[in-house]
Amino acid sequence: MLELRGYLSKRRPPLIVLAARGTSDNAAQFGRYLLEITTGIPVSLAAPSVTTLYGAKLHLENALVVGISQSGESTDINMFLESAREQGALTVGVTNEGGSTLARLARHSVVLAAGRETSVPATKTYTGQLLAMYLLAHALGAPIELEDLERLLEWTGKALELEPRIAALAAEYASIEHAIIVGRGLDYANALEFGLKMMEACYVVAERFSGADFLHGPIALVEKTFPVFVFAPPGPTWPGTRDIVSSLGRLGARVVAITDRSNPEAASLAGDTIVIPAEVAEQTSLPIEFLTPIPYIVPAQLFTAHLARSKGLNPDQPRTLTKVTRTV
Amino acid sequence: MLELRGYLSKRRPPLIVLAARGTSDNAAQFGRYLLEITTGIPVSLAAPSVTTLYGAKLHLENALVVGISQSGESTDINMFLESAREQGALTVGVTNEGGSTLARLARHSVVLAAGRETSVPATKTYTGQLLAMYLLAHALGAPIELEDLERLLEWTGKALELEPRIAALAAEYASIEHAIIVGRGLDYANALEFGLKMMEACYVVAERFSGADFLHGPIALVEKTFPVFVFAPPGPTWPGTRDIVSSLGRLGARVVAITDRSNPEAASLAGDTIVIPAEVAEQTSLPIEFLTPIPYIVPAQLFTAHLARSKGLNPDQPRTLTKVTRTV
Repeated sequence: MLELRGYLSKRRPPLIVLAARGTSDNAAQFGRYLLEITTGIPVSLAAPSVTTLYGAKLHLENALVVGISQSGESTDINMFLESAREQGALTVGVTNEGGSTLARLARHSVVLAAGRETSVPATKTYTGQLLAMYLLAHALGAPIELEDLERLLEWTGKALELEPRIAALAAEYASIEHAIIVGRGLDYANALEFGLKMMEACYVVAERFSGADFLHGPIALVEKTFPVFVFAPPGPTWPGTRDIVSSLGRLGARVVAITDRSNPEAASLAGDTIVIPAEVAEQTSLPIEFLTPIPYIVPAQLFTAHLARSKGLNPDQPRTLTKVTRTV
Repeated sequence: MLELRGYLSKRRPPLIVLAARGTSDNAAQFGRYLLEITTGIPVSLAAPSVTTLYGAKLHLENALVVGISQSGESTDINMFLESAREQGALTVGVTNEGGSTLARLARHSVVLAAGRETSVPATKTYTGQLLAMYLLAHALGAPIELEDLERLLEWTGKALELEPRIAALAAEYASIEHAIIVGRGLDYANALEFGLKMMEACYVVAERFSGADFLHGPIALVEKTFPVFVFAPPGPTWPGTRDIVSSLGRLGARVVAITDRSNPEAASLAGDTIVIPAEVAEQTSLPIEFLTPIPYIVPAQLFTAHLARSKGLNPDQPRTLTKVTRTV
């Protein structure tokens, strides 16, 4: 990372392209918001098939192209990265496997060292990938201090302590078959990831929306008792999210808000809440919202695991799936 | 459009950013694939809140920034476009309303002239927006001839003739409460749009996936009789889509393929099919797949309208929604 930082400080890229699939693509979605907001460099989330199936040569001279893959063996991500390198891009691989094809192909690699994921649905590599996005922003000169990131460890620990409360809540939701998950801005990626986990591990048909898109149509789905999970951090997304929570309340939806103690309004508006203590985050120089994605996804991951168990399922081994998916 | 073509031929943009919400964002998703594949210029789908909520100034000097909005009155899209213009971008507005704020803000505007959308769920403006994406690719020098596009009128007419068959099929699906929609590449946008329409007009919880992401997790959702709708054009996406249709068959899912007569394998593998005659498209210089998005969405729109009626709903006036959504 230090070497990468030195390199990037001399040559600021005009464009960042993030290439990933599944859970890693959700981490890329977070990276997209964080990098655009903190560096002003436009970010594109790659559509790898443009290269792998249609054979297009993208003009990526001087672009920073980042492949993100837990295993480092996603065939299409690796093909996309290889093609980007041929087109003159600076390539970075973010992976949990230092000896993987991705780590070998990329000019720089960021190895997560999160330890082996033993269950099929990835959890700790997702939070590891989010952390890698902060480090990438830092390397690009964003106003993110490493000390701020160190607070995440303690705050995430506080989120883990909520497990008994979360297990009890999940038991109340054991019979749900569908759900809507809403997030916005820096926490939009968490909505995508929470929904994916619910689909993989609980077989809940979970629709995932940015708060802005939700009001453009999908809110028509909602009727009384429809379960809706909302990421509700403080900060600039809160007024819009508050409108959604209020509308959902009027429609009689069953709303669960994931929030922290610095945003008491969220806790008062939603029917059910998962509230993380905020004192830890309050001591950083960044606005609290910037630090919420990692601590906020942890209760969602715990909820998923307990919901699966409440349904009599094994959250570590969903039907149909295998660990590494090789798509071209 | 001619003026824009002249302008772009002299100054090829290094980056294209498409900014839209809801149905228009699905059209942008099509534009993303079409423009990258046919011009090699990287495309980013905007996250407007980066500008409107977080106040970031994106470095968009020389970029082509295209706002797409049926009404031209989406507050956040207009704010994003205005900010892009201040950052030195060339701005284009694609809208159905020539007198709208978007048309006034953008340096160039492409007015769809699709006639007034009288129902809340947009249909003809979606196909109009897809057509605008072809014209934009043409203006950027893509190998797309206007005569190829003229064939679309006849082919889409053939799709409309399938209405009696589609109405009968929709009646068979009247009791569905959830569904999965899969598309890939140039037809991925159609999967997003078909699912959105099902949610808006039929209150079906419709999950939408790119074929590649679907195998990375969400396929775990599928059990016997689960309804899955698959866009199955011929071309480079078909081998991957064929694998999905085969896997779904083994899982006992109820698969409906939307395809055309040039891809007989799709019709033979899926349980139910909507097959558009292909003779019309075969006479063009482009691969058939490039022309499928408009004719393929029409049966999906018809299916949605008939499914809503089969459920006793009015497809033109969904609950909760209004026509113009003003999000910031």
